[in-house]
Amino acid sequence: MGDGVTDGRFHLNRRRLLAGGAVAVAAGATLSHSGIAQSAVPAEAVDRAVEPFHGWHQAGVATSPQAHALFIAVDLEPQPHRGPQETLAAVLRLWTSDAERLTQGTPALADTEPELAQRPARLTVTVGVGPRLFDRIGLGNRRPQAVADPPAFATDRLEPQWCGGDLLLQICADDPITVAHTSRVLLKNVRGMTRQRWRQKGFRQAAGSGAHSMRNLMGQVDGTANIVDEAGFDRHVWDDGDDQPWFAGGTTLVLRRIRAEMDTWDELDRTSKELSVGRRFDSGAPLTGSREDDVPDFDAAEGGIPVIPPNAHIALARPHSDDERFLRRPYNYDDAPPAGRITDSGLIFAAYQRDPAVQFTPVQRRLAAADALNEWITTIGSATFAILPGVEPGGYLGQTLLS
Amino acid sequence: MGDGVTDGRFHLNRRRLLAGGAVAVAAGATLSHSGIAQSAVPAEAVDRAVEPFHGWHQAGVATSPQAHALFIAVDLEPQPHRGPQETLAAVLRLWTSDAERLTQGTPALADTEPELAQRPARLTVTVGVGPRLFDRIGLGNRRPQAVADPPAFATDRLEPQWCGGDLLLQICADDPITVAHTSRVLLKNVRGMTRQRWRQKGFRQAAGSGAHSMRNLMGQVDGTANIVDEAGFDRHVWDDGDDQPWFAGGTTLVLRRIRAEMDTWDELDRTSKELSVGRRFDSGAPLTGSREDDVPDFDAAEGGIPVIPPNAHIALARPHSDDERFLRRPYNYDDAPPAGRITDSGLIFAAYQRDPAVQFTPVQRRLAAADALNEWITTIGSATFAILPGVEPGGYLGQTLLS
Repeated sequence: MGDGVTDGRFHLNRRRLLAGGAVAVAAGATLSHSGIAQSAVPAEAVDRAVEPFHGWHQAGVATSPQAHALFIAVDLEPQPHRGPQETLAAVLRLWTSDAERLTQGTPALADTEPELAQRPARLTVTVGVGPRLFDRIGLGNRRPQAVADPPAFATDRLEPQWCGGDLLLQICADDPITVAHTSRVLLKNVRGMTRQRWRQKGFRQAAGSGAHSMRNLMGQVDGTANIVDEAGFDRHVWDDGDDQPWFAGGTTLVLRRIRAEMDTWDELDRTSKELSVGRRFDSGAPLTGSREDDVPDFDAAEGGIPVIPPNAHIALARPHSDDERFLRRPYNYDDAPPAGRITDSGLIFAAYQRDPAVQFTPVQRRLAAADALNEWITTIGSATFAILPGVEPGGYLGQTLLS
Repeated sequence: MGDGVTDGRFHLNRRRLLAGGAVAVAAGATLSHSGIAQSAVPAEAVDRAVEPFHGWHQAGVATSPQAHALFIAVDLEPQPHRGPQETLAAVLRLWTSDAERLTQGTPALADTEPELAQRPARLTVTVGVGPRLFDRIGLGNRRPQAVADPPAFATDRLEPQWCGGDLLLQICADDPITVAHTSRVLLKNVRGMTRQRWRQKGFRQAAGSGAHSMRNLMGQVDGTANIVDEAGFDRHVWDDGDDQPWFAGGTTLVLRRIRAEMDTWDELDRTSKELSVGRRFDSGAPLTGSREDDVPDFDAAEGGIPVIPPNAHIALARPHSDDERFLRRPYNYDDAPPAGRITDSGLIFAAYQRDPAVQFTPVQRRLAAADALNEWITTIGSATFAILPGVEPGGYLGQTLLS
């Protein structure tokens, strides 16, 4: 820039500017909900809609899935004058401060693009801690037993660039600009203390589309028969603190990156696709029903042949006991393909539960062994995170772990 | 998959299924417009809204910008039994057939995920041809003079992976699933005849946000004082066929990938930012006005010092004659950063015009020479395309060029 342009002729009163923005947003912020998934918000309110930040649980789990998600894993960087536990506390305090403002439509402290904060669009910021971090910060004895990577599955083809991570930032909103600005603020404020390991960007149907379950890019209705009520969340999702009292109100996320082998999938006829999934593609109904929420009849047969094949995806993925239920909150991905391929897309499969070893893992073991879909899907990434308990005003995320 | 699952118990009547889908969409498709930018659609209709495909011009230029855009450049692949001109014709016929269905909410022929086509969400597919393709197909004499890459600018730092291309697919919709499915269909149907060169994914505010001009990720209101009326489009955007009669109704796109240097930008105080742009960041108003659409007063001075510095972005970017106006239809990008950086974001700057040499280039020359913003933005990609004239039912895109 030329000289003379920084002489301050247009000193705005920053404090006033930010306060004004906050008031405008608060006036427009009429939509919120508490803990249970809801249907899509009226779309004229998309940009001003707010999700609560404080509470017993973090938002972004029971929250009705927003249209856009960004999952970012970072590793802690060694600091010259600070131990890893102090570094972690510093990161979590900063993220708490930023998230409690940004999610409510208020710019972060020292937000350099404050106007981008004024359309929260149901923004949630959800923070998790990877299983190996507990030892690294000298708190191995406080790791909940449930927070452990699932075993290797025969069908996994894990690529290190999509695995692991000390910390997870899950940023969801109905507006992609909100997601971009939030990630920028959260990451730059901890620069030097963290290094990005991977990021995965996902999407569902746009807000206001009125859709219930989403469709994935293979064309399936995805997310039928999910956990929706408070009792179900308490039973299957939220930790009760029995193992580690500090973790009460948290949950364990298993995040899997599942590539869709679209080229071979597209060669399959529709009947074979529906038999491999066990559902119709038009309605999402099970092959034994006519509506998406009809309960599949796995015993139904025609001429001695099961209507839903025993190796159909839903036959193996369904809970074989009530213990095996968990919350699925998946997002599609569609990235630039490597040279010579035309598509690189699939599913960011996010499963939230009390204990993967008794919920996710047995289901995935069955799927790995026999799922008819395995020929067209490949798990290429896997990461596990303790989604920290929620926080009340004045506290910070992870406080019960670190204090 | 096991044996026995492809025995056809669930033969759907494909023709009936597709027809049913088309009818449902047609009934829901009440929103369309012809040629002039409009304000955001009511969001409850986001997924069913349809833009017209046929017409004198292609859609996707004058169309009010959708929330999501995917720009894909492909090169033609040499074919054993077919010349490049025939190959091009085959590609353009396929894309026409696919686009005229998908944009109207009807699955493509042999669409393997027909349900993903039923939410057009204002889908537009816009096809362009790169300047070097004319020689390659033996029609160098039919290249419009206007369709030529701009000269190199001093501030360019072009990376080959973001430059050039034989053909452009511009896919825009308010729903990211629609964009993903459309790109999949269009690309797989021409597999073998094309090879992807680059793809750039962009976004603006979500549909239903009620915003007029968008904000870019540097926080600026972007897109003020654009071309909006039919006379302006006829004067500045649409080719009239005087040079090449086949090109009447087309336009020339200059697509620039402009990286934002967010780390240094964020260090700048707000006053300096506003002086470098020439506009306030809160309202988007020029420094001499109070509302976004106030006309900047470049002669205003205080104590002899211009209120808008002569090297401010808007002082140099504004048309110095009426000839220099062109349509801007930019999108933000925010991709995974390279190792060691926290952000890779910026603007996919799309400028549509009759002749870049007299519209885009003189403006960019001024900006390259002196724009105060240059310290914080870097052009890393550039590509030029002849956006083909529109097509009527029964015809195909590029027909006037190839026949």
